[in-house]
Amino acid sequence: MDFLFFVLNFVLTLTLPVHCGKILVFPHEGSHWINMNVLIEELHARGHHITVLRALDSWYIAEESPHYVSITLPVLLGGDDEFYHTFISKQLQIRRQGHSAWTRFKLDMSLKDKFSEMHQKICELVIYIIEKDPALIDRLEKTGYDVMLTDPANGGGVVLAHYLHLPLVLNVRWTVHGEAHFGMAPSPLSYVPFPLSQLTDRMTFIQRTYNLLFYTVRLYLYKRIVGPHYRALCARYFHPHLDYFELFQAADIWLMRVDFVFEFPRPTMPNIIYVGGFQCKPAKRLPADLEDFVQTSGDHGVIVMSLGTLVGQLPLDIAEEIAAAFAELPQKVILRYTGERPSALANNTLLVKWFPQNDLLGHPKTRLFVSHGGTNGIFEAIYHGVPIVGLPLVFDQDDNLSKMRSRGVAKVVDIATIDRRSFKEALHEVLRDPSYRRRMQKLSQLHRDTPLKPLESAIFWTEFVMRHKGAAHLRTEAYKMPWYSYYSVDVVGFLMCVVLLTVFVVFNIIRCLCCRCVKRKKKQD
Amino acid sequence: MDFLFFVLNFVLTLTLPVHCGKILVFPHEGSHWINMNVLIEELHARGHHITVLRALDSWYIAEESPHYVSITLPVLLGGDDEFYHTFISKQLQIRRQGHSAWTRFKLDMSLKDKFSEMHQKICELVIYIIEKDPALIDRLEKTGYDVMLTDPANGGGVVLAHYLHLPLVLNVRWTVHGEAHFGMAPSPLSYVPFPLSQLTDRMTFIQRTYNLLFYTVRLYLYKRIVGPHYRALCARYFHPHLDYFELFQAADIWLMRVDFVFEFPRPTMPNIIYVGGFQCKPAKRLPADLEDFVQTSGDHGVIVMSLGTLVGQLPLDIAEEIAAAFAELPQKVILRYTGERPSALANNTLLVKWFPQNDLLGHPKTRLFVSHGGTNGIFEAIYHGVPIVGLPLVFDQDDNLSKMRSRGVAKVVDIATIDRRSFKEALHEVLRDPSYRRRMQKLSQLHRDTPLKPLESAIFWTEFVMRHKGAAHLRTEAYKMPWYSYYSVDVVGFLMCVVLLTVFVVFNIIRCLCCRCVKRKKKQD
Repeated sequence: MDFLFFVLNFVLTLTLPVHCGKILVFPHEGSHWINMNVLIEELHARGHHITVLRALDSWYIAEESPHYVSITLPVLLGGDDEFYHTFISKQLQIRRQGHSAWTRFKLDMSLKDKFSEMHQKICELVIYIIEKDPALIDRLEKTGYDVMLTDPANGGGVVLAHYLHLPLVLNVRWTVHGEAHFGMAPSPLSYVPFPLSQLTDRMTFIQRTYNLLFYTVRLYLYKRIVGPHYRALCARYFHPHLDYFELFQAADIWLMRVDFVFEFPRPTMPNIIYVGGFQCKPAKRLPADLEDFVQTSGDHGVIVMSLGTLVGQLPLDIAEEIAAAFAELPQKVILRYTGERPSALANNTLLVKWFPQNDLLGHPKTRLFVSHGGTNGIFEAIYHGVPIVGLPLVFDQDDNLSKMRSRGVAKVVDIATIDRRSFKEALHEVLRDPSYRRRMQKLSQLHRDTPLKPLESAIFWTEFVMRHKGAAHLRTEAYKMPWYSYYSVDVVGFLMCVVLLTVFVVFNIIRCLCCRCVKRKKKQD
Repeated sequence: MDFLFFVLNFVLTLTLPVHCGKILVFPHEGSHWINMNVLIEELHARGHHITVLRALDSWYIAEESPHYVSITLPVLLGGDDEFYHTFISKQLQIRRQGHSAWTRFKLDMSLKDKFSEMHQKICELVIYIIEKDPALIDRLEKTGYDVMLTDPANGGGVVLAHYLHLPLVLNVRWTVHGEAHFGMAPSPLSYVPFPLSQLTDRMTFIQRTYNLLFYTVRLYLYKRIVGPHYRALCARYFHPHLDYFELFQAADIWLMRVDFVFEFPRPTMPNIIYVGGFQCKPAKRLPADLEDFVQTSGDHGVIVMSLGTLVGQLPLDIAEEIAAAFAELPQKVILRYTGERPSALANNTLLVKWFPQNDLLGHPKTRLFVSHGGTNGIFEAIYHGVPIVGLPLVFDQDDNLSKMRSRGVAKVVDIATIDRRSFKEALHEVLRDPSYRRRMQKLSQLHRDTPLKPLESAIFWTEFVMRHKGAAHLRTEAYKMPWYSYYSVDVVGFLMCVVLLTVFVVFNIIRCLCCRCVKRKKKQD
């Protein structure tokens, strides 16, 4: 009886919410929302009450959901698929005309006005919440939220948490200053490749120089783009000289959407919790038609291809080359594609507008994933142990795939020069060389072999912050020091002065003594 | 039925060994063994086969145990209680004669010959294993151990693991170069106080200067003391120019015997697992006589005092002062003491040669712990939420207690100047000011609120290394870089040269052009 009681108690402890709290969520739009929503659903399942702040024209964030209550703010953020589609097409065009590091850099920088505008609008949204609707801010203040959960790719949630004096949990990969680690953990540029650099943790002298230079330039640009907006916002509500980035660094817990089968080993901080791949789960049974198609592949198996939610199609000539390469394979291919059907498409390829990617990647017949290199897709491939042929297009995709390539689990094809031959060669290499699959399955084992699943970990630490009203004991406040103190420049300078002064005094004493000796000797002579 | 199967399966997964492996243990003597033994017992309970290497005169490590098989090596390490007792008496004597930081430093340094001798003997022990008994090294090589578990306070296990090509797990707080973090994680001396400094993470300019200076001097001394022995050993078996400390840095997992309710927040690395307090467990029922004594304390409760396993007694005059202070309290006192019974001892104080410290600290009537400040005792006090009056004597005890003092959970009394009045005042302050207990109970909550208990975590990661034959993906190899590359000195130097050269060239071109203009003008004139 005692044993049964123990077992039931144990199971209950694991399944019942520890503490039902109130969570305020300030999300970031686009694919970031997909990750945030996974967290929200799980927190809701554990009995927490969740309020999501959204703009009138929110693009991914639904107004109604069984998992949260939303507050729609009458502010337009102006985010839409259209802009990004045009941007991606332009990127693709420039890439195909040949691209140096400098061209890619300029290309990224062409986004800066859009980003600046986005941050400006986010600040307007925060101002609306605090000033324009007294009933709203009153409601937010009086509800007694336990925590603010936000994605700091924009700073709205961070500033609002500070205004409302709420503990802060970040669901994060990027802050407004770029990759999140760089904002709060020591990141020696000698072995920590700067994000988007496509470098590894083992760099040559030239690569280290490039790493340091480009990181410095990028950080300067990020600060130029976002700084004015958040500085003005902080001056309005807090202190005219407050460094807005301190508010980010003051976050209690950073739920970092990577782990070390993806990221290279690097210094970290006690309040960083790695939750990379928290959206992955065991594959469910496929819909009957897909399952039938997959089963027809026999021993050759299936290739799954998707270029992410943003990119449904490619320029027709590229699509034709890809289709032609697929047509020559004995494998079956399932291709998520919304564009015009390429004429070279053979019977072995199934074109669909949408597919259950996680379930397909987890199917035992899946041999290969052709991916654009978004982190969500990469983590699903790692989780299910499926090697990758990468077709990176924009943003961090080149960098993500270069990480996978350096681990020997992916082959990357340049979209600028792709043709049926090069694409088929890449597919052949990954399909025929068993080391790709073996290494990916090893990565999968390492990724899955954790004492706590990434999603459980994310929930535990969010609830931890709610239970203890923060996590101050895990968070250094060293970021408040001026840089010359942080890097001990003042201390080293002081010690050098002391040494120089000592040398100078000793030298002069010796000189004086020598002079006197010489004078005395002269007198004696 | 399905549910019952699930529950049973789940419970079995948690209780059955995941993988029964073979573990080679190279322990460190003295109180370090107590911690190692906790790990060994748990690993044995999970079905692993453990072999412990010990010297002929091993001091704490028993030859026979139900938990491990020992291999006794016919080498004398010369470690014994006697030396440390004499050393501690001497320390106490010097402390009482007044002590500056410099005196304390000199005192610590007086240990250096003993430490040098210890490391020399450890190296002889390794040489014995590898060279003197071919059957032994053959046995070790052929047994097929899955991992070497060692405490790197000496380097024997680290070198042997490298020789036997075994994955390496460190059960660690100190390496041969001092506190373990400093050997492998970035440790900015501007906010990471150097161990033994009694500083916090918020330092004044003078404190930061002291921190940097003393750390540099200490590191130099550590290297002087241990360097020659391990360098010679590595030259003998590996490579004449191998930096022996790289072998430590190559460890797969560092089971660090602290956590962040004890340590100040600071940078860490992905392969550091915090297991501070892994020896703590819920209190068991006290023996009848102790329980009866505790119950007589009524609402006043009990004070528990111990000065650690090494120090059973104090100079009689100090003991008399302490006994006299206790005599004036309404609380009952349980004192672990092996020396002469002080005449001032009153009826409220029970003198015992040994007591179950964890069970006493966990008793609901315990109000206060008078402790020398060893980490084991401090973690037990944190675990059970009992505030501390500290009487630090030697080693890291001052530093440990200063950490607790900075968190407002301990009052520290200087053994050099202690008398009944000052000691009683300290006891009164901690007993009467409820904030000490409240803060300690908050620390206790934070310490206990982890997704995995520290001991489970230690076991998980040891088994992880066994399962995957290492943890290379969590371990940076940046330590292999030369210092000037690690700190980007070469890159910054190169960039400065480029800038200077550019300035020089541009300046000269402009000068030439100006000269020509002037000449032409002169000609025209």
